[in-house]
Amino acid sequence: MPQPIFSLGLDFGTGSARALVVDTRDGTEVATAVFDYPTGEAGVVTESRDPNFARQNPADYVAALDAIIQQAVAEASSYPGFSPAGIVGIGVDTTGSTPIPVDHTSTPLALHPGFAKDPGAYAWLWKDHTAHAEAAEITAKATAGGYPYLGKCGGTYSSEWYWSKMLHSERSNPAVTRAAASWVELCDYIPAYLTGVTDIAHVKRGICAAGHKAMYSATWGGLPRAEFLEALEPGFSRFREGYLTPALPSDRVAGTLTPSLAARWGLPAGIAVAVGAFDAHVGAVGAGAGAGTLVKIMGTSTCDCIVAPLTEHVADIPGVCGIVPESILPGMYGIEAGQSAVGDIFDWFVRRISPAAYGTGSEAHARLTDAAAKLRPGESGLVALDWHNGNRTVLVDPLLTGMIVGEHLQTTPADIYRALIEATAYGALTIIDRLEEYGVRVERIINCGGIAEKNSLVMQVYADVTGRPMQVSRSGQTCALGAAICGAVAGRAHPSVADAQRAMTGVKATVYAPIPAHREIYRRLYRIYSQLHDAFGTKEGAASLYGVMKELITIRQSVRQRP
Amino acid sequence: MPQPIFSLGLDFGTGSARALVVDTRDGTEVATAVFDYPTGEAGVVTESRDPNFARQNPADYVAALDAIIQQAVAEASSYPGFSPAGIVGIGVDTTGSTPIPVDHTSTPLALHPGFAKDPGAYAWLWKDHTAHAEAAEITAKATAGGYPYLGKCGGTYSSEWYWSKMLHSERSNPAVTRAAASWVELCDYIPAYLTGVTDIAHVKRGICAAGHKAMYSATWGGLPRAEFLEALEPGFSRFREGYLTPALPSDRVAGTLTPSLAARWGLPAGIAVAVGAFDAHVGAVGAGAGAGTLVKIMGTSTCDCIVAPLTEHVADIPGVCGIVPESILPGMYGIEAGQSAVGDIFDWFVRRISPAAYGTGSEAHARLTDAAAKLRPGESGLVALDWHNGNRTVLVDPLLTGMIVGEHLQTTPADIYRALIEATAYGALTIIDRLEEYGVRVERIINCGGIAEKNSLVMQVYADVTGRPMQVSRSGQTCALGAAICGAVAGRAHPSVADAQRAMTGVKATVYAPIPAHREIYRRLYRIYSQLHDAFGTKEGAASLYGVMKELITIRQSVRQRP
Repeated sequence: MPQPIFSLGLDFGTGSARALVVDTRDGTEVATAVFDYPTGEAGVVTESRDPNFARQNPADYVAALDAIIQQAVAEASSYPGFSPAGIVGIGVDTTGSTPIPVDHTSTPLALHPGFAKDPGAYAWLWKDHTAHAEAAEITAKATAGGYPYLGKCGGTYSSEWYWSKMLHSERSNPAVTRAAASWVELCDYIPAYLTGVTDIAHVKRGICAAGHKAMYSATWGGLPRAEFLEALEPGFSRFREGYLTPALPSDRVAGTLTPSLAARWGLPAGIAVAVGAFDAHVGAVGAGAGAGTLVKIMGTSTCDCIVAPLTEHVADIPGVCGIVPESILPGMYGIEAGQSAVGDIFDWFVRRISPAAYGTGSEAHARLTDAAAKLRPGESGLVALDWHNGNRTVLVDPLLTGMIVGEHLQTTPADIYRALIEATAYGALTIIDRLEEYGVRVERIINCGGIAEKNSLVMQVYADVTGRPMQVSRSGQTCALGAAICGAVAGRAHPSVADAQRAMTGVKATVYAPIPAHREIYRRLYRIYSQLHDAFGTKEGAASLYGVMKELITIRQSVRQRP
Repeated sequence: MPQPIFSLGLDFGTGSARALVVDTRDGTEVATAVFDYPTGEAGVVTESRDPNFARQNPADYVAALDAIIQQAVAEASSYPGFSPAGIVGIGVDTTGSTPIPVDHTSTPLALHPGFAKDPGAYAWLWKDHTAHAEAAEITAKATAGGYPYLGKCGGTYSSEWYWSKMLHSERSNPAVTRAAASWVELCDYIPAYLTGVTDIAHVKRGICAAGHKAMYSATWGGLPRAEFLEALEPGFSRFREGYLTPALPSDRVAGTLTPSLAARWGLPAGIAVAVGAFDAHVGAVGAGAGAGTLVKIMGTSTCDCIVAPLTEHVADIPGVCGIVPESILPGMYGIEAGQSAVGDIFDWFVRRISPAAYGTGSEAHARLTDAAAKLRPGESGLVALDWHNGNRTVLVDPLLTGMIVGEHLQTTPADIYRALIEATAYGALTIIDRLEEYGVRVERIINCGGIAEKNSLVMQVYADVTGRPMQVSRSGQTCALGAAICGAVAGRAHPSVADAQRAMTGVKATVYAPIPAHREIYRRLYRIYSQLHDAFGTKEGAASLYGVMKELITIRQSVRQRP
């Protein structure tokens, strides 16, 4: 008998999917495989006339599963003691809120030939902001009606979330409206696919997606009431049907791998598949999340996760994305905040502006980082706002845009690159300040993701700006590792997530400590950032310039819609 | 006898000097020669740790005269009827305020070996802003003391101007303080050199430089009173001595070309040399300035010149650079306004940021212009402030900086390039609005300079933003042509400047008319620009963000001054 000590983590990111085989005894990452989504630009279907548009082809997910599982298992075969029969569990994490319209068998509409070319029937990727008007409408109606639904998601419903996207689709794509039996989050769809669900009413809904994005809470008995949904759009409450409750945390078993898929991939049948959750939350698990520890998952955007015991009172915190029981760890509130763009902003500068002196791609990032690292804080005279993709926390406003102030005739690309890094650090500090203001103490910060691992300048700037040491997760693939931890618990290799974390996670030896002289300058720059933040981002206050960006966007949109 | 019908215009710009031989009968440009200043970067001595620093080596001016006069005359020899003996007059224009410390013979200190390497003894180029603290001090003391001196220069004395620079030097360079008998504007130095002045007390001072930059006005008896200058710095009033008054307009004769220079350059001795003036004012003459006509000289920066009859009342206009009798045309007030950077901002983007997809240099400008021309107004969602080199009119604040707002993840270099063009157009409209608000009507706009001639997008955007047709001067070298007009009048080829203008100037056939649909969008964008302008540029108003840029600069400077 092979030792039942391996777990498989499946991580569905924005541009690719990844499988990771992990030794559950010590977290050793045995084998990994990645599949780039073939549809669209780097896996994202965009619309040149609408920067808010971002969809994904569900067929890419199915293709990805085929590719990454077989490849990871094949690569693991050289690891001592490995055999496919030693895999005890599979965990799943994905981007989100990425809802997919499905038929009554829980098959994505886009997998039917009639919808294969209709991006309206695709997965609506987390960063799709086409539903901003519907988000504002949901916020307004929930607030005006005195409903409690926004209390746990910062007081504002987002265009990135489940109901906004469904409502926008409901009104703009009658074919999808007629055909969709339900909408399933990608993180729920993958376990349903793996476990052979053929009835929408049997799809296990994860508490992570439900609680953070679908206004689901036990406090008000699950989903929003039918009358609320009907008031948004007649007939809209039908989507309460086929939404299995209660929603479940990701240490629970969703089901077992179907015999046909097991046979296809050379795995034993009956492997436990955990309930799915979002990549950031699962990544926080893989990075070592625990009470008082803020885990920052830094990628194209940033997700900030922290937990607090269910036994403590956690106030509603304006502007955080969600406060949901057990969405990250069992027994804990999961609190999620985030920045709508971080790596995406640095990539924008390299890919779109592309200063000639620095080359292209990762070489450009490296050379700009080197040049920016030679600058001293404050030297450039620049301050930027990190809102190129809107602001998630604390303003919850997808229609905010970037800005940079302080340019002069000698301003260099390195000045700007550093200012963009600093802007994201100020945005990070704004989130920390908000958490602490509402009683959630941040005692330790662990970063993970490619930027945290590769870019020591970014980590040092974050330490200097926040005045806190920055630690980096030991694993380079914390999301997939977190998924593997969920798989390990589902497959009973560990009795609890906490036990699995103790065995399987850790941080790197290098810690970035704040440099006092830098800290002093950044304190002053952060005051300016906050002034700009409030002036451009809020309606209140004497110094409000709030209408500026809105008006620019209104003008832009009206111009683009002209023939 | 050769026909006495030729005039020589000498134009000393920021990076080079130019000589133009003109047929005074019809303005035909017979021959031209250009000399690039060899010292520094494109003729400007800079200081990497201080972006405010911009000096020029006076030896370059003397070398330039040798080169351009001989070359222009040689090239003119193929023109029918030309002979050096047919040159009746020489006119001179230069950048300014560009004061040069000189000894008692009016020789620049920098031409003495002991000062040849001391940039403190060089010409302080117009765009040198090192004296910003002294400018603020002069403004404060003139205002507090109830002196009238700022009434004709917009109420604020500039760091770019004569006394600010002298005061900064007085306090920072004891060697220059001891050696300088006076400071002479470059536009006064060149005629003094050509006419063999050997005593500082005999240098003819032009009313253009005196009135616009040196607080000279017949209203208060010439220069500021000694008590005012002494209050700025003990001993500072000594510079009133050796400053020949009255200051003179540029249709007057400063003297005649010295026999030795005439012999050296193969010219007849005794050629009339006109009193010098600033390039922009003389350029306005060459472009066809007259009552109601705004002449915009568009180069690295922009100078906006308009005239109004001396017989009319012209109110003091806050923020304009100067209102000086006969500084542009005889019998007219010369009113000067301007933008501290226009072409410099476009060049900054091409040279410093240098987006890889567009090549370099003039090719990059052409390709970015082509791409920007394909965008529709408002489409980019961007608005910028044109303050990369501070703001001259109407804010008179060299410490303002650029900004751009509205960036998102698809923002392109062409978006930004167009936004920078638009920003300069909004700045231009701000000046027009200010003039008209104070009763100076702008009935016609003539543009000149390389950008006006070469870049039809810029002209169209200016028409669309201002809602006024844009005309372009026929001559491609209006400053040198204007200088030649002054030379023609000094040499009596025409009885007056107006007569000379009628014969020698004109506009191109192409007129850029405002496009109504663009105008509508730009009206909305201009409101945003004005909001940002007031928020970032003024202390008043509920929406003031005035402290932001100042604080950034304070931080930048304090960081740079650290070891």
